[in-house]
Amino acid sequence: MTYAERLAAATDARGRLCVGIDPMPTVLTAWDLPHDVTGLERCARGIVEALGEKVAVFKPQSAFFEAFGSKGVAVLETVLADIRAAGALSILDVKRGDIGSSMAGYAAAYLGDDAPLRADAITVSPYLGVGALAPAVERAVGGGQGLYVLARTSNPDGAPVQLARSGEASVAQHVVDTCAELNKTSDHAVGLVVGGTHSDLGCDVTAFNASILVPGIGAQGGTVAALAEVFGGAIGHVLPTASREVIGSGAAELSARADRLLDQVSQLD
Amino acid sequence: MTYAERLAAATDARGRLCVGIDPMPTVLTAWDLPHDVTGLERCARGIVEALGEKVAVFKPQSAFFEAFGSKGVAVLETVLADIRAAGALSILDVKRGDIGSSMAGYAAAYLGDDAPLRADAITVSPYLGVGALAPAVERAVGGGQGLYVLARTSNPDGAPVQLARSGEASVAQHVVDTCAELNKTSDHAVGLVVGGTHSDLGCDVTAFNASILVPGIGAQGGTVAALAEVFGGAIGHVLPTASREVIGSGAAELSARADRLLDQVSQLD
Repeated sequence: MTYAERLAAATDARGRLCVGIDPMPTVLTAWDLPHDVTGLERCARGIVEALGEKVAVFKPQSAFFEAFGSKGVAVLETVLADIRAAGALSILDVKRGDIGSSMAGYAAAYLGDDAPLRADAITVSPYLGVGALAPAVERAVGGGQGLYVLARTSNPDGAPVQLARSGEASVAQHVVDTCAELNKTSDHAVGLVVGGTHSDLGCDVTAFNASILVPGIGAQGGTVAALAEVFGGAIGHVLPTASREVIGSGAAELSARADRLLDQVSQLD
Repeated sequence: MTYAERLAAATDARGRLCVGIDPMPTVLTAWDLPHDVTGLERCARGIVEALGEKVAVFKPQSAFFEAFGSKGVAVLETVLADIRAAGALSILDVKRGDIGSSMAGYAAAYLGDDAPLRADAITVSPYLGVGALAPAVERAVGGGQGLYVLARTSNPDGAPVQLARSGEASVAQHVVDTCAELNKTSDHAVGLVVGGTHSDLGCDVTAFNASILVPGIGAQGGTVAALAEVFGGAIGHVLPTASREVIGSGAAELSARADRLLDQVSQLD
């Protein structure tokens, strides 16, 4: 099965919600956990234990695991396996981007059946060009996995790069259009990351032909209700993603908070 | 001491050369090593063992360590410690870039005295904006460490993003200028990555005020002799970086190949 088919099957069954696994210091504190690799493991695995059978997709943020070095990365391997065992999909948020053999090295780390940190999809960064991501595209397609390419992010600092003019269009639009073209020969495996807090995106994604990861629902100010207005005809491709809104108030409220968002996203379909 | 001071001391003593530690599959083969974590460790540590006391700076490429999962990252921790023990500096090539708490997570992983993967500098990617890198700048300055921000890379695929027009200038120029401005209040800790194979850079770095990492000397087609022409007045800031040219033909030739390049770069001073 292709990534697009696997994602559709998962969200059809469980609802169109992605929960971010962001075991950052403030979250560990809210969970009454120590700021060490034990706390990291209890938080991250606890999220999957509580929600693994009701949420379709999880997005672990690699930075919070790398912050504990190789031991944190070992926890990430376990969390990715937990997500798989629960029948959910993982989008590993690593925002990697490099060229040639280095990009191939990242692809080998995260994509393909034998990757040690195998995820169902990863996020990638196009500063070195969408074309530089080719080794990851190839390996993702071969493994029935996906990519999410940063297009337009929610932070104001991103504008000088993402809204610069590349030919007739913005850089973000160039990324959107290049990925859409790639998808025609890549099993629609190449998705986008687009921030959920813009009233005006600065790029047109309404004709995009694969999944669109939209972080920032809840704590960062985005709402599910506003998505239909911003994304228009592409709303069917949007994967709303919430993190602190679900995990930020401690372990006890996890399930109730996920249920509330699952109810909201059900109104998108 | 600031990163700029530490880098100057190291290159004054040993010459202005950075050797890339890129234990990619073709290199492991050339070294007659198995394509597993044992081969990775013998190659990467072997480079530091052979050259650690004659080369000023090493640049391990994180992708080739991540390709072996948490065990590969554990090897990277050892290699970073080896480099430190040999009295050389490390520029860890990770090209990280994220926003807010995630960028702070990456900074905690690699920068500051207590980072588990502490390097003397790391490479970072500005697709989310140079401003988004602030948590890394702050932590680097506090630890006497440095950053190298991707500005203009050597691959042709990078042009649609890096040469897009951001206001009056290219995105690459915007990155150069924003980093130069940052350096005025950041101990000149914010360097650039600029490819060494362009005859025309598409941005003006001649007035830049911190270190410029220039990969691609040797195997990728750049030559030390051509650098003075491309970088003009900034040549004093250029840190020529070679990898396959030094490590690509097996362990036996390492020292002779490094000596040849050290002789070439000595003509830059």
